[in-house]
Amino acid sequence: MFTCTLDPHSRTTLCDQLYSALKAEIVRGGLRPGARMPSKRELAAHLHVSTATVEAAYGRLTSEGICESRPRSGVYVCEQVETAQTPHRETVVPIRWDFGTGAADAAHFPYATWARLMREVLSEQSRDLLLSGDPQGSAGLRQEIAGMLHRLHGLDVQPDAIVVGAGTDVLVTVLVALIGRERLFAVEDPGYSRVRRMLVASGARIAPTPLLGGAIDVRALYASGAGAAYVTPSRQFPTGAEMNDAQRAALLRWSRETGAYILEDDFDSEFRFAGVSRPALRAMEGGGRVIYMNTFARTLASGLRMSFMVLPMELIARYRAMHAACSVPGFEQETLCKFIAGSYLERHIARMRVVYRARLQTLTEEAKALGEVAPCSAGLYALLNVAGRVPAQELLPLAAQAGVRLTRLCDYSVMPPDAQSERVVLLGFAGMDEEAIREGLRVLKKAWL
Amino acid sequence: MFTCTLDPHSRTTLCDQLYSALKAEIVRGGLRPGARMPSKRELAAHLHVSTATVEAAYGRLTSEGICESRPRSGVYVCEQVETAQTPHRETVVPIRWDFGTGAADAAHFPYATWARLMREVLSEQSRDLLLSGDPQGSAGLRQEIAGMLHRLHGLDVQPDAIVVGAGTDVLVTVLVALIGRERLFAVEDPGYSRVRRMLVASGARIAPTPLLGGAIDVRALYASGAGAAYVTPSRQFPTGAEMNDAQRAALLRWSRETGAYILEDDFDSEFRFAGVSRPALRAMEGGGRVIYMNTFARTLASGLRMSFMVLPMELIARYRAMHAACSVPGFEQETLCKFIAGSYLERHIARMRVVYRARLQTLTEEAKALGEVAPCSAGLYALLNVAGRVPAQELLPLAAQAGVRLTRLCDYSVMPPDAQSERVVLLGFAGMDEEAIREGLRVLKKAWL
Repeated sequence: MFTCTLDPHSRTTLCDQLYSALKAEIVRGGLRPGARMPSKRELAAHLHVSTATVEAAYGRLTSEGICESRPRSGVYVCEQVETAQTPHRETVVPIRWDFGTGAADAAHFPYATWARLMREVLSEQSRDLLLSGDPQGSAGLRQEIAGMLHRLHGLDVQPDAIVVGAGTDVLVTVLVALIGRERLFAVEDPGYSRVRRMLVASGARIAPTPLLGGAIDVRALYASGAGAAYVTPSRQFPTGAEMNDAQRAALLRWSRETGAYILEDDFDSEFRFAGVSRPALRAMEGGGRVIYMNTFARTLASGLRMSFMVLPMELIARYRAMHAACSVPGFEQETLCKFIAGSYLERHIARMRVVYRARLQTLTEEAKALGEVAPCSAGLYALLNVAGRVPAQELLPLAAQAGVRLTRLCDYSVMPPDAQSERVVLLGFAGMDEEAIREGLRVLKKAWL
Repeated sequence: MFTCTLDPHSRTTLCDQLYSALKAEIVRGGLRPGARMPSKRELAAHLHVSTATVEAAYGRLTSEGICESRPRSGVYVCEQVETAQTPHRETVVPIRWDFGTGAADAAHFPYATWARLMREVLSEQSRDLLLSGDPQGSAGLRQEIAGMLHRLHGLDVQPDAIVVGAGTDVLVTVLVALIGRERLFAVEDPGYSRVRRMLVASGARIAPTPLLGGAIDVRALYASGAGAAYVTPSRQFPTGAEMNDAQRAALLRWSRETGAYILEDDFDSEFRFAGVSRPALRAMEGGGRVIYMNTFARTLASGLRMSFMVLPMELIARYRAMHAACSVPGFEQETLCKFIAGSYLERHIARMRVVYRARLQTLTEEAKALGEVAPCSAGLYALLNVAGRVPAQELLPLAAQAGVRLTRLCDYSVMPPDAQSERVVLLGFAGMDEEAIREGLRVLKKAWL
């Protein structure tokens, strides 16, 4: 049990003393990332303080992103927290094979075209691009995005309903302010942890909501009283399940009946390798309270920092009252506008679909030696259920020692995950070519089996 | 008194009904921007509902940025709210002379140099720029910013303490999450309303704090229990007062004694026309909890969307745990890095100091016909105390009808401003050349006198 000396006569409150002692212990590595914190009652008894004091100290650690509270389970040290050990561990073995899911291929980026269009923009010397411009992003760019949504996603939206922003993190923060912090935000569990973190950082209360048949459990949404739900219908992250028609209809019904907003994150849906895409939730009957989000981080490059969302019109008025400027520079906006208008984006996506499909094939073939690979019809990672006798908790450390970065399905859960998901790893293939994928898997095989 | 029909038997709550009715009235223009809302007690009595219902409806309007609550005064319709009248009013007379304070001169922007450097960046084909890069901004850019801070502001900071972001709005939002929403954020009153709005949008509770001798009243900071204070020491916005040594020392003492953070916004301090700059608060003894913020929106162009802040190291760890990417595109970061390294930024600032000084001189000279102009030794706007018999509340409407945009000192107050400040207007001179300034002032004279 964690122990420390608290001075009731100090000018510093007991809560502050406890908070500092716990934080120091976490940074020192005594309480490790992912570890469960002592129960409030036990720690209070052990240190002879009230449970309210422990609760307040835990609350502060949670609000600072050092700990996280998991409903019906307890308080845990965040996986991402930086400890004295963290940099040390990283310097030992550099990452050579990155199966992370956040990357996009940089080698195939149409650099020459992008550079030519940006040079064009620069030589037009439009000094308007130096001003703040429209807070939603330029009218021309929004027009092009609307056209692209129609052609690629069968989605018809008004350019006036689009807001462009410097990445999904920025847009999520904007959304929390628009929708209101008094609403409870349901998130899929397991789900996209980066957006979950941004929601919490933005001051939203979140309700991790289990999946039922691969999609967010709508009965749980009714029960939790959530006023918004962040979902990934085209391919649930990280399980890869596609939301079926009945599940979509139920979700929309919930939104209609409760007045809740649906945040539909459609990233990666451009990369479909088999089957037919369903229309976006936003395009469906009753999708009036659906906020559609997508990013150019995967279809182009994450370093360009461009995402967008489609808002119901009542939120557009609120957005314009809050924001005097768009967070994307004028030069980038104008270049992207020309890039879409010249059909370069769609050609690039078509080309990358071929490249990624080949990688997926290689990865599926080679990963069979490591366990069972789930069939993957879309998106830029595959799921591998690792066979063999290596303990589940050793999978990532062994991979890291061999220079391989990856994550497990259970890493995306807030609620206690089932044992099964501790042996399932995500293999992102956007950041490596086929040769590197083969190598990385060979290295993993040696490390694990 | 505002009236509406509420149905106690409806499935919609009384609060929701009242909220919708009030919002509709505001959008219709029945309750005008800037108007005081009926007192909660009166409205509750008038509509036969509880004050809690009115309070909840007002709370929702406030959280949505439609209304704002002014301590010890009441609830007001936000000045910025969009009503059915707004676009109509705007289309009648287009703005020809913009004395707004947010602009930077676009005509003198070193377009050729910027374009050349960006072309260089593009032709280097560094595919690393396509990746997310360092979440604080590239190491090279931070190195250059640290050098610039040393040369221009006498501020010595570690590049590792710098965070680059897509504009001050984005950084303020990031800061609220880093510092924590449990802290009360003191803001100068009158003060910079755009940052105040972003603080509120980010979920921070704010404490508008009066000025004493031109600087934030430190006794009021102790009394309010604020855990952070946003201040503009080098030139208080909007009053133009400079924080003296005693005031700086008292503010730092407050920060040290209470553990509060100081957010020092140093924008515009590069443009000093007389006297000597004091060092930044951050550079002073005891400045360990000062967060220094500045922007390239004025020294270069707002359309580039680049600001930065210098954080205490404990906040850097937290920032890196929360943020996986910097919000500024790699191409822009690299171009700015070359721009500072080549001394182009400092040369541009020196050139603009001459340009702006001439404009200030012209403006001061010509505005004398309209009233008393306060001496201005730094920054990009002057304060004019309008003489004559035109009523204070007519100043802006008459200007708008003549095609002139400006703001009054009282527009930046949350607390009831003194009558004096209702006749003081801010005249920004960064967006107009001398001829336009002369014209604009002639037009104002005709409209007002």
